[in-house]
Amino acid sequence: DFDSALQEVHPAFGVDQDDFEVFLRDGLIHYGRRFEHLWETVTTFAKQLHMSQRTNLLSVLLEGPRGSGKTTLAAHAAFESGYPFVKIISPEQMVGFSEPGRASRIAKVFDDAYKSPMSVIVLDNIERLIDYVDIGPRFSNPILQTIMILLKKRPKLERKLLIIGTTSHADILRPMEMLEAFNVVVHVPSLADLEDMRNVLVDTELFEPSDIDAALKVMPPTIGIKQLMLVIEMAQSKSPEGSKVSVGHFQQCLFDCGCFDPSLAKDPSETF
Amino acid sequence: DFDSALQEVHPAFGVDQDDFEVFLRDGLIHYGRRFEHLWETVTTFAKQLHMSQRTNLLSVLLEGPRGSGKTTLAAHAAFESGYPFVKIISPEQMVGFSEPGRASRIAKVFDDAYKSPMSVIVLDNIERLIDYVDIGPRFSNPILQTIMILLKKRPKLERKLLIIGTTSHADILRPMEMLEAFNVVVHVPSLADLEDMRNVLVDTELFEPSDIDAALKVMPPTIGIKQLMLVIEMAQSKSPEGSKVSVGHFQQCLFDCGCFDPSLAKDPSETF
Amino acid sequence: DFDSALQEVHPAFGVDQDDFEVFLRDGLIHYGRRFEHLWETVTTFAKQLHMSQRTNLLSVLLEGPRGSGKTTLAAHAAFESGYPFVKIISPEQMVGFSEPGRASRIAKVFDDAYKSPMSVIVLDNIERLIDYVDIGPRFSNPILQTIMILLKKRPKLERKLLIIGTTSHADILRPMEMLEAFNVVVHVPSLADLEDMRNVLVDTELFEPSDIDAALKVMPPTIGIKQLMLVIEMAQSKSPEGSKVSVGHFQQCLFDCGCFDPSLAKDPSETF
Amino acid sequence: DFDSALQEVHPAFGVDQDDFEVFLRDGLIHYGRRFEHLWETVTTFAKQLHMSQRTNLLSVLLEGPRGSGKTTLAAHAAFESGYPFVKIISPEQMVGFSEPGRASRIAKVFDDAYKSPMSVIVLDNIERLIDYVDIGPRFSNPILQTIMILLKKRPKLERKLLIIGTTSHADILRPMEMLEAFNVVVHVPSLADLEDMRNVLVDTELFEPSDIDAALKVMPPTIGIKQLMLVIEMAQSKSPEGSKVSVGHFQQCLFDCGCFDPSLAKDPSETF
Amino acid sequence: DFDSALQEVHPAFGVDQDDFEVFLRDGLIHYGRRFEHLWETVTTFAKQLHMSQRTNLLSVLLEGPRGSGKTTLAAHAAFESGYPFVKIISPEQMVGFSEPGRASRIAKVFDDAYKSPMSVIVLDNIERLIDYVDIGPRFSNPILQTIMILLKKRPKLERKLLIIGTTSHADILRPMEMLEAFNVVVHVPSLADLEDMRNVLVDTELFEPSDIDAALKVMPPTIGIKQLMLVIEMAQSKSPEGSKVSVGHFQQCLFDCGCFDPSLAKDPSETF
Amino acid sequence: DFDSALQEVHPAFGVDQDDFEVFLRDGLIHYGRRFEHLWETVTTFAKQLHMSQRTNLLSVLLEGPRGSGKTTLAAHAAFESGYPFVKIISPEQMVGFSEPGRASRIAKVFDDAYKSPMSVIVLDNIERLIDYVDIGPRFSNPILQTIMILLKKRPKLERKLLIIGTTSHADILRPMEMLEAFNVVVHVPSLADLEDMRNVLVDTELFEPSDIDAALKVMPPTIGIKQLMLVIEMAQSKSPEGSKVSVGHFQQCLFDCGCFDPSLAKDPSETF
Ligand SMILES: Nc1ncnc2c1ncn2[C@@H]1O[C@H](COP(=O)(O)OP(=O)(O)OP(=O)(O)O)[C@@H](O)[C@H]1O
Ligand SMILES: Nc1ncnc2c1ncn2[C@@H]1O[C@H](COP(=O)(O)OP(=O)(O)OP(=O)(O)O)[C@@H](O)[C@H]1O
Ligand SMILES: Nc1ncnc2c1ncn2[C@@H]1O[C@H](COP(=O)(O)OP(=O)(O)OP(=O)(O)O)[C@@H](O)[C@H]1O
Ligand SMILES: Nc1ncnc2c1ncn2[C@@H]1O[C@H](COP(=O)(O)OP(=O)(O)OP(=O)(O)O)[C@@H](O)[C@H]1O
Ligand SMILES: Nc1ncnc2c1ncn2[C@@H]1O[C@H](COP(=O)(O)OP(=O)(O)OP(=O)(O)O)[C@@H](O)[C@H]1O
Ligand SMILES: Nc1ncnc2c1ncn2[C@@H]1O[C@H](COP(=O)(O)OP(=O)(O)OP(=O)(O)O)[C@@H](O)[C@H]1O
Ligand SMILES: [Mg+2]
Ligand SMILES: [Mg+2]
Ligand SMILES: [Mg+2]
Ligand SMILES: [Mg+2]
Ligand SMILES: [Mg+2]
Ligand SMILES: [Mg+2]
Repeated sequence: DFDSALQEVHPAFGVDQDDFEVFLRDGLIHYGRRFEHLWETVTTFAKQLHMSQRTNLLSVLLEGPRGSGKTTLAAHAAFESGYPFVKIISPEQMVGFSEPGRASRIAKVFDDAYKSPMSVIVLDNIERLIDYVDIGPRFSNPILQTIMILLKKRPKLERKLLIIGTTSHADILRPMEMLEAFNVVVHVPSLADLEDMRNVLVDTELFEPSDIDAALKVMPPTIGIKQLMLVIEMAQSKSPEGSKVSVGHFQQCLFDCGCFDPSLAKDPSETF
Repeated sequence: DFDSALQEVHPAFGVDQDDFEVFLRDGLIHYGRRFEHLWETVTTFAKQLHMSQRTNLLSVLLEGPRGSGKTTLAAHAAFESGYPFVKIISPEQMVGFSEPGRASRIAKVFDDAYKSPMSVIVLDNIERLIDYVDIGPRFSNPILQTIMILLKKRPKLERKLLIIGTTSHADILRPMEMLEAFNVVVHVPSLADLEDMRNVLVDTELFEPSDIDAALKVMPPTIGIKQLMLVIEMAQSKSPEGSKVSVGHFQQCLFDCGCFDPSLAKDPSETF
Repeated sequence: DFDSALQEVHPAFGVDQDDFEVFLRDGLIHYGRRFEHLWETVTTFAKQLHMSQRTNLLSVLLEGPRGSGKTTLAAHAAFESGYPFVKIISPEQMVGFSEPGRASRIAKVFDDAYKSPMSVIVLDNIERLIDYVDIGPRFSNPILQTIMILLKKRPKLERKLLIIGTTSHADILRPMEMLEAFNVVVHVPSLADLEDMRNVLVDTELFEPSDIDAALKVMPPTIGIKQLMLVIEMAQSKSPEGSKVSVGHFQQCLFDCGCFDPSLAKDPSETF
Repeated sequence: DFDSALQEVHPAFGVDQDDFEVFLRDGLIHYGRRFEHLWETVTTFAKQLHMSQRTNLLSVLLEGPRGSGKTTLAAHAAFESGYPFVKIISPEQMVGFSEPGRASRIAKVFDDAYKSPMSVIVLDNIERLIDYVDIGPRFSNPILQTIMILLKKRPKLERKLLIIGTTSHADILRPMEMLEAFNVVVHVPSLADLEDMRNVLVDTELFEPSDIDAALKVMPPTIGIKQLMLVIEMAQSKSPEGSKVSVGHFQQCLFDCGCFDPSLAKDPSETF
Repeated sequence: DFDSALQEVHPAFGVDQDDFEVFLRDGLIHYGRRFEHLWETVTTFAKQLHMSQRTNLLSVLLEGPRGSGKTTLAAHAAFESGYPFVKIISPEQMVGFSEPGRASRIAKVFDDAYKSPMSVIVLDNIERLIDYVDIGPRFSNPILQTIMILLKKRPKLERKLLIIGTTSHADILRPMEMLEAFNVVVHVPSLADLEDMRNVLVDTELFEPSDIDAALKVMPPTIGIKQLMLVIEMAQSKSPEGSKVSVGHFQQCLFDCGCFDPSLAKDPSETF
Repeated sequence: DFDSALQEVHPAFGVDQDDFEVFLRDGLIHYGRRFEHLWETVTTFAKQLHMSQRTNLLSVLLEGPRGSGKTTLAAHAAFESGYPFVKIISPEQMVGFSEPGRASRIAKVFDDAYKSPMSVIVLDNIERLIDYVDIGPRFSNPILQTIMILLKKRPKLERKLLIIGTTSHADILRPMEMLEAFNVVVHVPSLADLEDMRNVLVDTELFEPSDIDAALKVMPPTIGIKQLMLVIEMAQSKSPEGSKVSVGHFQQCLFDCGCFDPSLAKDPSETF
């Protein structure tokens, strides 16, 4: 079966644990049925590609609102694929590089991957990789074109490559025809279900069990898991060490971060 | 006659089998009457040019929706022309080259072709060769102009050159006046006929004959042959080794790839 | 508690007192309840981040009209954080540097910060850092992208980084998606309340107490504290040395600076 | 008279027979009254300039639809002028040159011409020389400006220069003010008259005399002579060697090249 | 008092008399009450800044129609400030410098000023310094940004800097937010009052006193003082040496310069 | 008086007779009252500037339709000024120079002029000097700005500079504010009066006196003198040597040059 099959491929050179550390360290909260479905969908692709006889290139795009957990999901799925070559290409690595420099860094990772029998590449935050800004709009066409080509360039027959992209701008990747250049598009939603939120709050172990219901009451209708984790953390830092988060602090921090009432969210004139 | 005539021209230097391998390896499925007509149309041009007394430059554009099989068709037709010089110019070869570098790579292939008595050049995925993106729109005018000129530049009298272009953007090549710069335009359609689809499914030998009708039932009204081959492959990798593809897996994979119901195709909000 | 905790961190290399001098020298006027609330909000973040267990990156944007005191507020809050590494990135430092030079100066400050256990970086006047001008509009996308990435790049686990941005163009940072890239947005308003204005006038000790009411009468409905300080200074320089500011001079200088009647403010045709 | 006068000027250095070969080799078909008028108009200018006492610069633009025979006409007229210096500047020579490189190649030819007592320069396909594309539109302003200036730059008194331009985009040269920068504009039309078409078919000697009327029946209302020659050639290559072109093949090839029914011409969806 | 205070600051290095000569040589005509008010307004700022205790940066913009005397006013006010460092930055000095070269020339003058205890810098003709042209519009954003920053960069505590800008395009400096970046905006109007015009005519001593009234009759409703001085000069050069200007010549020259009837002013079709 | 005054200034270095030859060789036809007025207007400026006591910079723009004789007029006026330094800056000299190269060539001529006591500079065909094209529109802003500045840069006190510009695009120089940057604008019209045309025809001595009336009958309502001279020349070259121009040939050549009926002028579809 699949798992034993993978054990034959020893993680060798190419897994970039240092780079990954920052994306993996906070861990995934398995917050329920919805998350399990998502997790299974995403992790299945590595297995399918591994088993496949003819297909040797598969590309999956994780798209969803800001802070919904796309990068963490992609990094974990890549890391747990068991593939010998796993790399993340993220905008953070691009600071200080010129446009052609960045295009060739991206191409370099793919070139390395083509030499490994099985590889996963995470293209994190694609709109940022291509310098997208909605005014104009402006973006780096050279980097966009490089990615468009690499999304379709098939490795030699005996090599396999899985590409996992992440974006919170499916809306702009579509007219660029990048959305459809991916074989599969998976939606990663914000938390919008009370049960899911409850599971997250419980999992953090930062609330008194008796406070959970009150905390859920002040929660906005939808919130990204990244934002929620930050708000809980901020609330915790307001509480005396050792004690749990008070619902009052939690509500205050939701407000400070502009997510108390989503209809007012981040409208600065409301912050003061 | 034509075939024996060609045998006199020994395939010499210039056929770039390595480059072609990736485009030829999966083979063509001869899925019926419609395909035969297409295949004959496309392969006739090499013969006509060979026989022609005055004409020594002929350009053919294969245009059609994404994944309809244009590149594979062009590569096979070029390879089977029997011409001594056969080259493919594809975006994949351009990664990492600057704009002028890419223009001169393209010109270099043509320059080499002008030295051979009979040559075929495939210009694959022209919109990508010219860095086209629909926002703006933006594209590389230097590369576009290079191609426009090379499409009309006639070799010396005793040389012959066949150019086969592919594109899924006839709509944008038209205002660029590149569409009409080709002598002939051939449409390569998606699969849209049940008989054609049946032939493809049968040809793969991956379905139980008794499942074919059920599989056709879940098929979308139209699908590119490239997409279809990928979906079948993905479905196969879900099935135990040695066994055939189950219709359930096939339907699931159609859904994952966003082509279960074409009216919903690739709308990410429906994927989850 | 927090303060004693910080005392363990000795201000070491990295606090750039020279650079800060210019932003700190005029001091803050504690002009009442509204200011205290603002000051507490802004200074709390450094404490929260210090206490936080998981969060190691926090970004706060101070936005408000021209001259409302954003830079001074940011500089004081940064300086009083007690963090060992405190730097201000301001447009003034960028004069004479090319676009890539400026992007890499910004990146350099962050790189240095990543090496300190606790850092504060002030990104002053962001619209000017990115060369924004409303005609076009034009701005430096490379610098914008650099800032966008650095706003999200998390330091290593054992490091903490607080980013305080200032801008009077929340309206343009929003479509650039930079507004929402900050974790918290704090509005810094102009003076609009008579009590606040009175406190400022009193605090300067430049008016005869008996003149304060008359001075408040000629005040425009709203005025930035920066503008108000300048006007008072100009009025003072008209008065004989040693004597207090006369209300007449004050009114004249308000007029000269285009803020006598805000409905006419800075309309040059009214100045003469 | 003129002809004997010219015989005194011996074709010397400067006639670029190699370059011209490709434009001259297929010859002109003298297809009747309309062509004779056109030919006389175009060839008269060289004689006029030769006789002229004061005028030493004359510029003529041949404009007309794609494939109407402009380049061939210009090349023949230039070659038959009998002038000692005859050069063609065509886009084909520009492949691989940078924008300034191309501008200076053009200027170089003119510089050489200024040294000869009598010169003809053909500026072939001006819209391509200036990299024109209708999207934007974009074009090379440096090259455009170079041509605009050279069209008006008069040689020294004792030198004469005839410039013959060709274009199928009179519509875009007009707003560029290049159209009016030429002293004379001559329209080169497509074939639109049955008598002219008959003359062409007869002249090729590739049809059975008895088939001519049938062939004329399947002809589109208008067709460029370049397109017509290609279609006849393609039809011929379908016929057994030695035999004449069948009307059926001719009609098929008209269809393949998208010119069977001009209302459908080159609409790819009709090709299949 | 102020004047004796200034005498302590000896004009030292830094006053660029050569550069100023061209702006000072023609002198100011003190043409009446309106001018005195303007002159006093403008010259007061240097005194105020000198007396000021806290303020060490003051910026004043002189804006008004073409030729109203802004540059002359700014140069005289700067020169008469008595400050030890006085420089003019004018477009004329920028000819032949590249865009970054010009930005750094500007920055260099400010850098020098920061080293002097008291400095005045004239930024002459700002729209020209930034290469403004109303088509597009286009301008040099790097130079604009440099100026925007320098307008707000405060010298060290013990230094004082007065910036006097001039522009005839307040309308475009406003959307660039440069207008409001100046602390004070002063309007410099054209001559529009008969009394003012009379004073100017009398002051030149070029008219017979008895002709003044007739000359005023042919005057346009408004005229820049620069234009008026030129017209008088032209009229004078038409008159025999030694004699006064005739009203007829004056009227003719007004007409030649397009300012006879302002409703027709500079409409070329009327000039002939 | 003026003329004897000038004789004291010996034509020295700086008059560029070679450059001028091409502009002077055909001469001016003094075709009547209208021309005399124009000629006097234009030649007066040099005299005025020479006599002027304070003014040392004068700029005159000759604007009018294509081919109305602006360049010839400017060149003759400059040459006959008798000034020791006379230069023409024309687009023809700029071929092959880069944008900054051209800007500095222009600046160089002015720099040389500033060294001569009295100078005339002709800025010929300004729209071409700045690379203007109406599509976009596009032009060289660096060259435009250079010219704008040089038009206002005054030489040292003891030097005098007359600038004569020519353009057929007053319409575009106006929004660039270059039109009003000239002190005087003079309109140079096409020939539109029968008497003027008769004078030109007579002056050429190429018509039989008895043919003049007939020739005037076929004349278009307006025609540039440049165009008219070319047409007469072309007609002459059709006539046997020694004999006069026939009205028939004249009419034919008017037609060929697109100016037979101005309502049809240069519409290519009418030429054939
Ligand atoms: N089940 C989960 N899935 C994803 N992230 C989770 C989950 N549980 C906890 N987290 C935490 O939530 C945060 C998700 O942040 P992440 O950067 O992955 O979001 P994102 O969607 O990529 O954000 P952005 O849109 O800014 O790129 C991480 O800190 C991660 O540790
Ligand atoms: N008859 C056929 N014609 C074309 N392709 C076929 C045929 N039968 C099977 N195939 C397979 O279908 C796939 C067609 O993919 P191909 O890349 O040629 O499509 P494309 O139209 O060029 O796609 P794109 O629009 O992405 O460039 C190949 O894997 C090829 O092996
Ligand atoms: N309570 C206060 N808060 C802020 N500034 C104050 C306060 N009291 C006095 N000031 C003074 O007001 C001025 C505020 O100027 P500052 O440059 O900080 O404003 P700003 O909003 O950053 O302006 P800009 O929009 O131009 O960047 C400083 O001189 C500062 O010393
Ligand atoms: N009378 C003729 N005039 C022009 N071309 C002719 C004539 N008779 C035959 N021909 C042939 O027709 C073709 C004309 O092609 P040519 O390239 O000159 O057209 P064109 O108008 O320049 O095309 P394009 O618009 O593509 O530049 C040539 O092959 C030429 O040999
Ligand atoms: N009272 C005055 N104020 C200003 N200029 C005066 C005055 N009296 C005479 N002049 C003369 O008027 C001319 C004013 O020209 P100046 O270049 O200063 O105008 P400007 O407004 O800067 O013009 P521009 O809009 O072209 O920059 C100078 O020649 C100056 O000597
Ligand atoms: N009175 C005249 N004024 C001007 N040109 C004349 C006159 N008489 C004859 N000519 C001739 O007319 C022609 C005028 O051409 P010129 O190049 O000066 O016109 P232009 O207006 O500058 O043209 P363009 O708009 O193309 O720059 C010259 O050949 C000149 O010799
Ligand atoms: Mg992410
Ligand atoms: Mg393809
Ligand atoms: Mg600030
Ligand atoms: Mg041609
Ligand atoms: Mg000025
Ligand atoms: Mg001219």
